[in-house]
Amino acid sequence: MPEARKSRREALAGLGAAPVFVLVEPQLGENIGAVARAMLNFGLTDLRLVNPRDGWPNNKAVSTASGAMAVIDGARVFDTLDEALADFRYVLATTARPRELLLPVFAPADAATTLHARIARGEPAAVLFGAERSGLDNDDLIRADGVIAIPSNPAFASLNLAQAAVIIAYEWAKAAGAAIEPGELAAASPAPKADFEGLIAHLISALDAANYFFPEDKRPVMERNLRVSFMRAGLTEQEVRTLRGAIRALEKPRRKRL
Amino acid sequence: MPEARKSRREALAGLGAAPVFVLVEPQLGENIGAVARAMLNFGLTDLRLVNPRDGWPNNKAVSTASGAMAVIDGARVFDTLDEALADFRYVLATTARPRELLLPVFAPADAATTLHARIARGEPAAVLFGAERSGLDNDDLIRADGVIAIPSNPAFASLNLAQAAVIIAYEWAKAAGAAIEPGELAAASPAPKADFEGLIAHLISALDAANYFFPEDKRPVMERNLRVSFMRAGLTEQEVRTLRGAIRALEKPRRKRL
Repeated sequence: MPEARKSRREALAGLGAAPVFVLVEPQLGENIGAVARAMLNFGLTDLRLVNPRDGWPNNKAVSTASGAMAVIDGARVFDTLDEALADFRYVLATTARPRELLLPVFAPADAATTLHARIARGEPAAVLFGAERSGLDNDDLIRADGVIAIPSNPAFASLNLAQAAVIIAYEWAKAAGAAIEPGELAAASPAPKADFEGLIAHLISALDAANYFFPEDKRPVMERNLRVSFMRAGLTEQEVRTLRGAIRALEKPRRKRL
Repeated sequence: MPEARKSRREALAGLGAAPVFVLVEPQLGENIGAVARAMLNFGLTDLRLVNPRDGWPNNKAVSTASGAMAVIDGARVFDTLDEALADFRYVLATTARPRELLLPVFAPADAATTLHARIARGEPAAVLFGAERSGLDNDDLIRADGVIAIPSNPAFASLNLAQAAVIIAYEWAKAAGAAIEPGELAAASPAPKADFEGLIAHLISALDAANYFFPEDKRPVMERNLRVSFMRAGLTEQEVRTLRGAIRALEKPRRKRL
């Protein structure tokens, strides 16, 4: 396994203490299942439900969880938000409308950093999500230490419950150090320059034999343009061999083999 | 975008301001609607569907779109991925498994930065999402300039379609404003995908005529390797023309001109 991949796995598996997601009066089992799947996608496993409308367990939740049964089976149900929050020391609440509560407001990435810091110093932490239609009301919000505002389109701000959850879970995992280098190639290093030059020389000699370079005074710019196209591709040794084989075939068509 | 660089075709299609999401053979209308809602939540409006399983329009999509009718009503349907991509100049494909395609791999935030930079210089850009069960297959992936890997839990990596979409849309909105492309290479704009596909088809037919593809069962991987080399180069329209001229010369050597 590539090292980058391994460290990601370790980062996600080694979360140990992680935030618990608390759904307040969720309505649709489908959404609860989708939240469970989203959580496990990013290495989170602890789910609590406050007074779910359609009871618990819920077959529709099982169906949309798509196999995230560790989350579904471990979900704990509470009658009130206060009971669900009793053992946490730090709570953030998601809302599309931070309102005027004088609570600290975090963007999702900053919330993730804060949650990591709190958990690292031994404070069990939770993230609250409101019901599908209404979100969290003010009585719920004032039980939180701060709010998470997902900066969405003001003209169409209301996110689906599971989509708000996946953004928070994604930012949590991202802050855990699960990083991909930008533009990283999946594998393999470029060919030695000698091989690359061999390819370019081969291409030019083949084109020369086909009287491609005309008029002659355009040759330098034509050669340069061809070279730059291939240069930019960062060809591997195997790719250089493949392209040389292709040029060879075009130079001298093979007889059909059966 | 400078008006001069914007072709008439692109202007008519209304491309250019933001990435277009392209769903390849989506199965459930519910998911298409949820993608539409997620897009509009973050200010994206252009959706394309390649061969949606249950046809289009789709009532279930309307229902889960929760009012994102601008996206649903404007969605365009195509029979093939190549048709859907013809007028883009930069395409990223989402996948949970970057595999060994030798395409650049971006984390979502870096993909968003790159998309902003490409679009800012007048290159219509698309993001591909695969079908619910299977994701994008290799034939689809190799039509992209790079892949977006959402760094998820390796033991439970498969995201719901709309949840992958919301993460990309969210990162797009987040990156609004900052747009320096990591590892930026060429200033020139890549050729439209239709031109690029023309080059690949030409190359393959020339090699075919030269009986290059042997044994026949190696053909798919040989074709794929050739394609990926050229894809990575981000060829411009001029470079595509140059390479087609080179292939033409190798196919039918010219008489020497003086």
